[in-house]
Amino acid sequence: MTELDVQTLQRRLAAFASARDWEPYHTPKNLAAALSVEAAELLEIFQWLTPEQSARVMERPETAHRVADEVADVLAYLLQFCEVLGIDALTALSEKIDRNEFRFPVPDRRNPPEPDDRHSSE
Amino acid sequence: MTELDVQTLQRRLAAFASARDWEPYHTPKNLAAALSVEAAELLEIFQWLTPEQSARVMERPETAHRVADEVADVLAYLLQFCEVLGIDALTALSEKIDRNEFRFPVPDRRNPPEPDDRHSSE
Amino acid sequence: MTELDVQTLQRRLAAFASARDWEPYHTPKNLAAALSVEAAELLEIFQWLTPEQSARVMERPETAHRVADEVADVLAYLLQFCEVLGIDALTALSEKIDRNEFRFPVPDRRNPPEPDDRHSSE
Amino acid sequence: MTELDVQTLQRRLAAFASARDWEPYHTPKNLAAALSVEAAELLEIFQWLTPEQSARVMERPETAHRVADEVADVLAYLLQFCEVLGIDALTALSEKIDRNEFRFPVPDRRNPPEPDDRHSSE
Repeated sequence: MTELDVQTLQRRLAAFASARDWEPYHTPKNLAAALSVEAAELLEIFQWLTPEQSARVMERPETAHRVADEVADVLAYLLQFCEVLGIDALTALSEKIDRNEFRFPVPDRRNPPEPDDRHSSE
Repeated sequence: MTELDVQTLQRRLAAFASARDWEPYHTPKNLAAALSVEAAELLEIFQWLTPEQSARVMERPETAHRVADEVADVLAYLLQFCEVLGIDALTALSEKIDRNEFRFPVPDRRNPPEPDDRHSSE
Repeated sequence: MTELDVQTLQRRLAAFASARDWEPYHTPKNLAAALSVEAAELLEIFQWLTPEQSARVMERPETAHRVADEVADVLAYLLQFCEVLGIDALTALSEKIDRNEFRFPVPDRRNPPEPDDRHSSE
Repeated sequence: MTELDVQTLQRRLAAFASARDWEPYHTPKNLAAALSVEAAELLEIFQWLTPEQSARVMERPETAHRVADEVADVLAYLLQFCEVLGIDALTALSEKIDRNEFRFPVPDRRNPPEPDDRHSSE
Protein backbone atom coordinates (compact mmCIF):
# COMPACT_ATOMS: atom_id res chain seq x y z
CA MET A 1 0.00 0.00 0.00
CA THR A 2 1.46 3.33 -0.97
CA GLU A 3 -0.04 5.49 1.73
CA LEU A 4 1.57 3.90 4.75
CA ASP A 5 4.34 6.31 5.37
CA VAL A 6 4.33 9.17 7.82
CA GLN A 7 4.52 11.96 5.26
CA THR A 8 1.50 10.70 3.34
CA LEU A 9 -0.54 10.30 6.52
CA GLN A 10 0.49 13.76 7.68
CA ARG A 11 -0.69 15.22 4.37
CA ARG A 12 -4.00 13.32 4.59
CA LEU A 13 -4.57 14.72 8.09
CA ALA A 14 -3.80 18.26 6.92
CA ALA A 15 -6.19 17.93 3.98
CA PHE A 16 -8.84 16.46 6.27
CA ALA A 17 -8.66 19.40 8.68
CA SER A 18 -8.53 21.94 5.88
CA ALA A 19 -11.62 20.55 4.13
CA ARG A 20 -13.57 20.90 7.38
CA ASP A 21 -12.30 24.40 8.24
CA TRP A 22 -10.74 23.09 11.44
CA GLU A 23 -7.43 24.90 10.94
CA PRO A 24 -8.31 27.84 13.24
CA TYR A 25 -8.66 25.35 16.10
CA HIS A 26 -5.34 23.70 15.33
CA THR A 27 -2.99 26.03 17.17
CA PRO A 28 0.11 24.26 18.49
CA LYS A 29 -1.21 24.77 22.01
CA ASN A 30 -4.58 23.18 21.25
CA LEU A 31 -2.99 20.25 19.43
CA ALA A 32 -0.59 19.67 22.34
CA ALA A 33 -3.60 19.64 24.70
CA ALA A 34 -5.49 17.24 22.42
CA LEU A 35 -2.44 14.97 22.17
CA SER A 36 -2.21 14.88 25.95
CA VAL A 37 -5.93 14.09 26.26
CA GLU A 38 -5.67 11.21 23.78
CA ALA A 39 -2.60 9.80 25.55
CA ALA A 40 -4.64 9.83 28.77
CA GLU A 41 -7.48 7.99 27.02
CA LEU A 42 -5.00 5.29 26.06
CA LEU A 43 -3.77 5.14 29.66
CA GLU A 44 -7.35 4.89 30.91
CA ILE A 45 -7.63 1.44 29.33
CA PHE A 46 -4.78 0.26 31.57
CA GLN A 47 -5.37 2.17 34.79
CA TRP A 48 -6.83 -0.66 36.88
CA LEU A 49 -4.99 -3.55 35.22
CA THR A 50 -2.13 -5.48 36.75
CA PRO A 51 1.12 -5.55 34.73
CA GLU A 52 0.20 -9.07 33.62
CA GLN A 53 -3.32 -8.11 32.53
CA SER A 54 -1.90 -5.14 30.66
CA ALA A 55 0.23 -7.51 28.54
CA ARG A 56 -2.91 -9.34 27.37
CA VAL A 57 -5.10 -6.45 26.20
CA MET A 58 -4.90 -7.49 22.56
CA GLU A 59 -6.49 -10.88 23.26
CA ARG A 60 -10.02 -9.45 23.42
CA PRO A 61 -11.00 -8.05 20.01
CA GLU A 62 -13.05 -5.26 21.54
CA THR A 63 -10.22 -4.03 23.75
CA ALA A 64 -7.68 -4.54 20.96
CA HIS A 65 -9.72 -2.28 18.71
CA ARG A 66 -10.01 0.34 21.43
CA VAL A 67 -6.24 0.30 22.01
CA ALA A 68 -5.45 0.62 18.29
CA ASP A 69 -7.99 3.42 18.00
CA GLU A 70 -6.34 5.42 20.78
CA VAL A 71 -2.89 4.78 19.26
CA ALA A 72 -4.25 6.24 16.01
CA ASP A 73 -5.59 9.30 17.84
CA VAL A 74 -2.28 9.95 19.60
CA LEU A 75 -0.34 9.62 16.35
CA ALA A 76 -2.87 11.80 14.50
CA TYR A 77 -2.48 14.70 16.92
CA LEU A 78 1.29 14.25 17.10
CA LEU A 79 1.56 14.49 13.29
CA GLN A 80 -0.84 17.44 13.11
CA PHE A 81 1.20 19.19 15.79
CA CYS A 82 4.38 18.55 13.77
CA GLU A 83 2.66 19.74 10.60
CA VAL A 84 1.70 23.16 11.98
CA LEU A 85 5.16 23.73 13.48
CA GLY A 86 7.20 22.27 10.61
CA ILE A 87 8.78 19.54 12.75
CA ASP A 88 10.01 16.30 11.18
CA ALA A 89 9.02 13.76 13.83
CA LEU A 90 11.14 10.91 12.47
CA THR A 91 14.28 13.05 12.28
CA ALA A 92 13.61 14.33 15.82
CA LEU A 93 13.32 10.75 17.09
CA SER A 94 16.37 9.53 15.18
CA GLU A 95 18.49 12.33 16.63
CA LYS A 96 17.12 11.64 20.11
CA ILE A 97 18.09 7.97 19.87
CA ASP A 98 21.57 9.06 18.74
CA ARG A 99 21.87 11.29 21.81
CA ASN A 100 20.51 8.60 24.15
CA GLU A 101 22.99 6.02 22.84
CA PHE A 102 25.69 8.42 23.95
CA ARG A 103 24.05 9.37 27.26
CA PHE A 104 23.14 5.82 28.32
CA PRO A 105 26.00 3.53 27.36
CA VAL A 106 25.20 -0.16 27.40
CA PRO A 107 25.74 -1.07 31.06
CA ASP A 108 28.12 -3.57 32.49
CA ARG A 109 25.76 -6.50 33.18
CA ARG A 110 27.64 -7.33 36.38
CA ASN A 111 26.50 -4.02 37.90
CA PRO A 112 22.84 -3.69 37.03
CA PRO A 113 21.27 -0.33 37.75
CA GLU A 114 18.87 0.30 40.56
CA PRO A 115 15.24 0.67 39.50
CA ASP A 116 15.45 4.31 40.39
CA ASP A 117 18.33 4.88 38.01
CA ARG A 118 16.06 3.66 35.30
CA HIS A 119 13.55 6.24 36.25
CA SER A 120 15.63 9.25 36.99
CA SER A 121 18.10 8.99 34.16
CA GLU A 122 15.79 8.94 31.23
CA MET B 1 19.02 8.53 4.83
CA THR B 2 17.87 4.94 5.14
CA GLU B 3 16.86 4.88 8.75
CA LEU B 4 14.08 7.41 8.63
CA ASP B 5 11.10 5.16 8.51
CA VAL B 6 8.93 4.08 11.39
CA GLN B 7 9.84 0.39 11.27
CA THR B 8 13.56 1.06 11.45
CA LEU B 9 13.15 3.50 14.33
CA GLN B 10 10.91 1.04 16.16
CA ARG B 11 13.60 -1.66 15.80
CA ARG B 12 16.29 0.73 17.03
CA LEU B 13 14.20 1.53 20.10
CA ALA B 14 13.63 -2.16 20.81
CA ALA B 15 17.35 -2.92 20.49
CA PHE B 16 18.16 0.07 22.70
CA ALA B 17 15.87 -1.14 25.50
CA SER B 18 17.01 -4.73 25.16
CA ALA B 19 20.71 -3.85 25.39
CA ARG B 20 20.04 -2.01 28.65
CA ASP B 21 17.80 -4.71 30.17
CA TRP B 22 14.89 -2.29 30.31
CA GLU B 23 12.36 -4.73 28.88
CA PRO B 24 10.91 -5.77 32.28
CA TYR B 25 9.89 -2.15 32.82
CA HIS B 26 8.26 -1.90 29.41
CA THR B 27 4.87 -3.36 30.18
CA PRO B 28 2.09 -1.88 28.04
CA LYS B 29 0.73 -0.18 31.14
CA ASN B 30 4.06 1.45 32.02
CA LEU B 31 4.65 2.58 28.45
CA ALA B 32 1.14 4.07 28.26
CA ALA B 33 1.88 5.97 31.48
CA ALA B 34 5.26 7.16 30.14
CA LEU B 35 3.62 8.25 26.87
CA SER B 36 1.07 10.25 28.82
CA VAL B 37 3.79 11.85 30.95
CA GLU B 38 5.80 12.88 27.87
CA ALA B 39 2.70 14.32 26.18
CA ALA B 40 2.15 16.42 29.32
CA GLU B 41 5.77 17.61 29.17
CA LEU B 42 5.10 18.82 25.63
CA LEU B 43 1.93 20.56 26.81
CA GLU B 44 3.86 22.19 29.66
CA ILE B 45 5.81 24.27 27.13
CA PHE B 46 2.52 25.81 25.97
CA GLN B 47 0.51 26.05 29.18
CA TRP B 48 0.88 29.79 29.81
CA LEU B 49 1.17 30.91 26.18
CA THR B 50 -1.52 32.71 24.21
CA PRO B 51 -2.62 31.01 20.98
CA GLU B 52 -0.48 33.53 19.08
CA GLN B 53 2.61 32.91 21.20
CA SER B 54 2.11 29.17 20.80
CA ALA B 55 2.38 29.57 17.01
CA ARG B 56 5.84 31.12 17.37
CA VAL B 57 7.58 28.60 19.63
CA MET B 58 9.98 27.50 16.89
CA GLU B 59 11.44 31.00 16.52
CA ARG B 60 13.66 30.66 19.59
CA PRO B 61 16.25 27.91 19.04
CA GLU B 62 16.21 26.85 22.67
CA THR B 63 12.44 26.39 22.76
CA ALA B 64 12.44 24.82 19.30
CA HIS B 65 14.89 22.20 20.50
CA ARG B 66 12.82 21.52 23.59
CA VAL B 67 9.67 21.07 21.51
CA ALA B 68 11.38 18.69 19.07
CA ASP B 69 12.85 16.76 21.99
CA GLU B 70 9.43 16.22 23.56
CA VAL B 71 7.97 15.22 20.19
CA ALA B 72 10.73 12.60 19.96
CA ASP B 73 9.92 11.32 23.45
CA VAL B 74 6.20 11.01 22.68
CA LEU B 75 6.90 9.16 19.44
CA ALA B 76 9.49 6.93 21.14
CA TYR B 77 7.04 5.73 23.78
CA LEU B 78 4.23 5.37 21.25
CA LEU B 79 6.39 3.13 19.06
CA GLN B 80 7.67 1.12 22.02
CA PHE B 81 4.07 0.65 23.16
CA CYS B 82 3.13 -0.54 19.67
CA GLU B 83 6.18 -2.84 19.59
CA VAL B 84 5.27 -4.72 22.77
CA LEU B 85 1.64 -5.15 21.72
CA GLY B 86 2.24 -5.88 18.03
CA ILE B 87 0.30 -2.85 16.80
CA ASP B 88 1.08 -1.25 13.43
CA ALA B 89 0.67 2.44 14.23
CA LEU B 90 0.57 3.63 10.62
CA THR B 91 -2.10 1.11 9.64
CA ALA B 92 -4.13 2.04 12.73
CA LEU B 93 -3.96 5.71 11.77
CA SER B 94 -4.75 5.09 8.10
CA GLU B 95 -7.84 3.09 9.06
CA LYS B 96 -8.88 5.77 11.54
CA ILE B 97 -8.68 8.47 8.86
CA ASP B 98 -10.77 6.24 6.58
CA ARG B 99 -13.41 5.95 9.29
CA ASN B 100 -13.33 9.67 10.08
CA GLU B 101 -13.79 10.60 6.41
CA PHE B 102 -17.02 8.63 6.58
CA ARG B 103 -18.09 9.94 10.00
CA PHE B 104 -17.34 13.61 9.32
CA PRO B 105 -18.39 14.39 5.75
CA VAL B 106 -17.01 17.64 4.36
CA PRO B 107 -19.55 20.19 5.58
CA ASP B 108 -21.67 22.50 3.56
CA ARG B 109 -19.76 25.78 3.90
CA ARG B 110 -22.99 27.73 4.05
CA ASN B 111 -23.84 26.07 7.38
CA PRO B 112 -20.64 26.11 9.42
CA PRO B 113 -20.67 24.04 12.58
CA GLU B 114 -20.80 25.55 16.01
CA PRO B 115 -17.51 25.46 17.90
CA ASP B 116 -18.98 22.90 20.23
CA ASP B 117 -19.79 20.55 17.38
CA ARG B 118 -16.12 20.61 16.59
CA HIS B 119 -15.37 19.54 20.08
CA SER B 120 -18.01 16.99 20.81
CA SER B 121 -18.02 15.17 17.52
CA GLU B 122 -14.42 14.17 17.26
CA MET C 1 -23.61 21.06 56.39
CA THR C 2 -21.24 19.05 58.51
CA GLU C 3 -19.70 16.84 55.85
CA LEU C 4 -18.05 19.51 53.75
CA ASP C 5 -14.54 19.21 54.96
CA VAL C 6 -11.71 17.32 53.34
CA GLN C 7 -11.25 14.76 56.09
CA THR C 8 -14.90 13.75 56.07
CA LEU C 9 -14.96 13.44 52.28
CA GLN C 10 -11.75 11.42 52.36
CA ARG C 11 -13.31 9.02 54.87
CA ARG C 12 -16.47 8.72 52.77
CA LEU C 13 -14.37 7.84 49.71
CA ALA C 14 -12.42 5.23 51.66
CA ALA C 15 -15.62 3.64 52.97
CA PHE C 16 -17.12 3.72 49.48
CA ALA C 17 -14.15 1.84 47.98
CA SER C 18 -13.99 -0.60 50.87
CA ALA C 19 -17.68 -1.51 50.65
CA ARG C 20 -17.21 -2.36 46.96
CA ASP C 21 -13.96 -4.32 47.42
CA TRP C 22 -12.10 -1.86 45.22
CA GLU C 23 -9.12 -1.53 47.55
CA PRO C 24 -6.91 -4.00 45.65
CA TYR C 25 -7.16 -1.73 42.60
CA HIS C 26 -6.26 1.35 44.61
CA THR C 27 -2.49 1.11 44.55
CA PRO C 28 -0.79 4.51 44.63
CA LYS C 29 0.33 3.94 41.05
CA ASN C 30 -3.18 3.17 39.80
CA LEU C 31 -4.66 6.13 41.66
CA ALA C 32 -1.99 8.45 40.23
CA ALA C 33 -2.86 7.17 36.75
CA ALA C 34 -6.59 7.64 37.38
CA LEU C 35 -5.97 11.16 38.70
CA SER C 36 -4.04 12.00 35.56
CA VAL C 37 -6.80 10.57 33.36
CA GLU C 38 -9.46 12.63 35.13
CA ALA C 39 -7.37 15.80 34.86
CA ALA C 40 -7.14 15.16 31.11
CA GLU C 41 -10.92 14.73 30.93
CA LEU C 42 -11.27 18.17 32.51
CA LEU C 43 -8.79 19.58 30.01
CA GLU C 44 -10.71 17.95 27.15
CA ILE C 45 -13.63 20.33 27.79
CA PHE C 46 -11.30 23.26 27.05
CA GLN C 47 -9.04 21.93 24.33
CA TRP C 48 -10.62 23.72 21.34
CA LEU C 49 -11.84 26.83 23.20
CA THR C 50 -10.28 30.26 22.95
CA PRO C 51 -9.15 31.81 26.25
CA GLU C 52 -12.30 33.96 26.16
CA GLN C 53 -14.62 31.01 25.56
CA SER C 54 -12.90 29.11 28.35
CA ALA C 55 -13.86 31.87 30.80
CA ARG C 56 -17.55 31.38 29.99
CA VAL C 57 -17.93 27.61 30.40
CA MET C 58 -20.15 27.96 33.45
CA GLU C 59 -22.80 29.91 31.52
CA ARG C 60 -24.25 26.79 29.91
CA PRO C 61 -25.76 24.52 32.59
CA GLU C 62 -24.80 21.34 30.74
CA THR C 63 -21.14 22.33 30.42
CA ALA C 64 -21.11 23.73 33.96
CA HIS C 65 -22.27 20.39 35.29
CA ARG C 66 -19.65 18.55 33.25
CA VAL C 67 -16.89 20.82 34.57
CA ALA C 68 -18.00 20.39 38.20
CA ASP C 69 -18.23 16.64 37.68
CA GLU C 70 -14.64 16.43 36.42
CA VAL C 71 -13.46 18.64 39.30
CA ALA C 72 -15.11 16.16 41.66
CA ASP C 73 -13.38 13.23 39.95
CA VAL C 74 -9.96 14.88 40.15
CA LEU C 75 -10.44 15.70 43.83
CA ALA C 76 -11.77 12.21 44.55
CA TYR C 77 -8.69 10.50 43.14
CA LEU C 78 -6.36 13.02 44.75
CA LEU C 79 -7.89 12.35 48.17
CA GLN C 80 -7.89 8.58 47.66
CA PHE C 81 -4.24 8.77 46.64
CA CYS C 82 -3.48 10.76 49.80
CA GLU C 83 -5.47 8.28 51.88
CA VAL C 84 -3.50 5.22 50.81
CA LEU C 85 -0.15 6.97 51.29
CA GLY C 86 -1.00 8.84 54.50
CA ILE C 87 -0.47 12.29 52.99
CA ASP C 88 -2.26 15.34 54.39
CA ALA C 89 -3.07 17.26 51.21
CA LEU C 90 -3.95 20.54 52.94
CA THR C 91 -0.74 20.56 54.96
CA ALA C 92 1.27 19.75 51.83
CA LEU C 93 -0.34 22.67 50.01
CA SER C 94 0.07 25.07 52.92
CA GLU C 95 3.77 24.25 53.16
CA LYS C 96 4.16 24.62 49.41
CA ILE C 97 2.60 28.08 49.47
CA ASP C 98 4.99 29.00 52.29
CA ARG C 99 7.95 27.88 50.18
CA ASN C 100 6.65 29.65 47.09
CA GLU C 101 6.21 32.92 48.96
CA PHE C 102 9.90 32.72 49.72
CA ARG C 103 10.94 31.57 46.23
CA PHE C 104 8.84 34.09 44.30
CA PRO C 105 9.00 37.40 46.14
CA VAL C 106 6.39 39.93 45.11
CA PRO C 107 8.01 41.61 42.10
CA ASP C 108 8.84 45.22 41.62
CA ARG C 109 5.95 46.38 39.42
CA ARG C 110 8.29 48.68 37.48
CA ASN C 111 10.15 45.62 36.13
CA PRO C 112 7.48 43.12 35.14
CA PRO C 113 8.72 39.65 34.33
CA GLU C 114 8.81 38.27 30.82
CA PRO C 115 6.08 35.72 30.06
CA ASP C 116 8.72 33.04 29.97
CA ASP C 117 9.83 33.80 33.49
CA ARG C 118 6.31 33.03 34.53
CA HIS C 119 6.56 29.68 32.91
CA SER C 120 10.03 28.57 33.74
CA SER C 121 10.18 29.68 37.32
CA GLU C 122 7.21 27.90 38.74
CA MET D 1 -3.84 25.68 62.92
CA THR D 2 -6.43 28.00 61.50
CA GLU D 3 -5.36 28.05 57.88
CA LEU D 4 -5.85 24.39 57.07
CA ASP D 5 -9.16 24.53 55.36
CA VAL D 6 -9.82 24.63 51.64
CA GLN D 7 -11.36 28.09 51.59
CA THR D 8 -8.43 29.69 53.36
CA LEU D 9 -5.91 27.97 51.09
CA GLN D 10 -7.92 29.00 48.03
CA ARG D 11 -7.83 32.62 49.19
CA ARG D 12 -4.09 32.44 49.84
CA LEU D 13 -3.52 31.11 46.33
CA ALA D 14 -5.65 33.88 44.82
CA ALA D 15 -3.78 36.55 46.76
CA PHE D 16 -0.46 34.99 45.77
CA ALA D 17 -1.31 35.11 42.06
CA SER D 18 -2.76 38.59 42.29
CA ALA D 19 0.32 40.03 44.04
CA ARG D 20 2.49 38.69 41.22
CA ASP D 21 0.21 39.86 38.38
CA TRP D 22 -0.29 36.27 37.25
CA GLU D 23 -4.05 36.58 36.85
CA PRO D 24 -3.95 37.15 33.05
CA TYR D 25 -2.31 33.73 32.71
CA HIS D 26 -4.91 32.07 34.88
CA THR D 27 -7.63 31.43 32.33
CA PRO D 28 -9.66 28.31 33.08
CA LYS D 29 -8.09 26.67 30.03
CA ASN D 30 -4.53 27.39 31.15
CA LEU D 31 -5.24 26.23 34.70
CA ALA D 32 -6.80 23.00 33.41
CA ALA D 33 -3.67 22.42 31.32
CA ALA D 34 -1.41 23.15 34.30
CA LEU D 35 -3.46 20.81 36.49
CA SER D 36 -3.07 18.06 33.93
CA VAL D 37 0.68 18.67 33.68
CA GLU D 38 1.09 18.47 37.47
CA ALA D 39 -0.97 15.27 37.65
CA ALA D 40 1.38 13.78 35.03
CA GLU D 41 4.39 14.85 37.11
CA LEU D 42 2.92 12.92 40.02
CA LEU D 43 2.37 9.91 37.77
CA GLU D 44 5.95 10.16 36.52
CA ILE D 45 7.20 9.17 39.98
CA PHE D 46 5.33 5.87 39.61
CA GLN D 47 5.67 5.06 35.93
CA TRP D 48 8.36 2.36 36.19
CA LEU D 49 7.42 1.03 39.64
CA THR D 50 5.71 -2.26 40.32
CA PRO D 51 2.44 -2.05 42.28
CA GLU D 52 4.38 -3.20 45.35
CA GLN D 53 7.11 -0.59 44.93
CA SER D 54 4.45 2.07 44.42
CA ALA D 55 3.02 1.28 47.87
CA ARG D 56 6.38 2.05 49.49
CA VAL D 57 7.21 5.46 48.00
CA MET D 58 6.84 7.23 51.33
CA GLU D 59 9.62 5.18 52.93
CA ARG D 60 12.40 7.22 51.31
CA PRO D 61 12.30 10.81 52.59
CA GLU D 62 13.43 12.24 49.27
CA THR D 63 10.71 10.50 47.29
CA ALA D 64 8.15 11.18 50.01
CA HIS D 65 8.87 14.89 49.75
CA ARG D 66 8.60 14.78 45.98
CA VAL D 67 5.23 13.01 46.15
CA ALA D 68 3.84 15.49 48.70
CA ASP D 69 5.14 18.36 46.58
CA GLU D 70 3.32 17.12 43.47
CA VAL D 71 0.14 16.54 45.51
CA ALA D 72 0.39 20.18 46.60
CA ASP D 73 0.81 21.34 42.99
CA VAL D 74 -2.22 19.35 41.80
CA LEU D 75 -4.38 20.70 44.63
CA ALA D 76 -3.08 24.25 44.04
CA TYR D 77 -4.11 24.27 40.39
CA LEU D 78 -7.41 22.53 41.14
CA LEU D 79 -8.32 25.21 43.70
CA GLN D 80 -7.17 28.05 41.43
CA PHE D 81 -9.28 26.58 38.64
CA CYS D 82 -12.28 26.44 40.99
CA GLU D 83 -11.60 29.99 42.15
CA VAL D 84 -11.72 31.53 38.67
CA LEU D 85 -14.89 29.63 37.74
CA GLY D 86 -16.69 29.95 41.08
CA ILE D 87 -16.86 26.21 41.68
CA ASP D 88 -17.07 24.80 45.22
CA ALA D 89 -14.86 21.73 44.94
CA LEU D 90 -16.01 20.11 48.19
CA THR D 91 -19.68 20.47 47.31
CA ALA D 92 -19.00 19.08 43.84
CA LEU D 93 -17.28 16.05 45.35
CA SER D 94 -19.94 15.51 48.00
CA GLU D 95 -22.67 15.52 45.37
CA LYS D 96 -20.65 13.18 43.18
CA ILE D 97 -20.28 10.68 46.01
CA ASP D 98 -24.04 10.91 46.58
CA ARG D 99 -24.65 10.09 42.91
CA ASN D 100 -22.10 7.27 42.91
CA GLU D 101 -23.66 5.66 45.98
CA PHE D 102 -26.84 5.45 43.96
CA ARG D 103 -25.15 4.34 40.72
CA PHE D 104 -22.90 1.71 42.27
CA PRO D 105 -24.89 -0.10 44.95
CA VAL D 106 -22.83 -2.17 47.35
CA PRO D 107 -22.47 -5.46 45.46
CA ASP D 108 -23.58 -8.85 46.54
CA ARG D 109 -20.28 -10.34 47.73
CA ARG D 110 -21.24 -13.75 46.32
CA ASN D 111 -21.12 -12.31 42.77
CA PRO D 112 -17.99 -10.21 42.63
CA PRO D 113 -17.61 -8.04 39.56
CA GLU D 114 -15.14 -8.78 36.81
CA PRO D 115 -12.08 -6.51 36.80
CA ASP D 116 -13.38 -4.90 33.65
CA ASP D 117 -16.64 -3.95 35.32
CA ARG D 118 -14.54 -2.03 37.78
CA HIS D 119 -12.98 -0.15 34.95
CA SER D 120 -15.85 0.48 32.64
CA SER D 121 -18.46 1.36 35.20
CA GLU D 122 -16.74 4.18 36.98
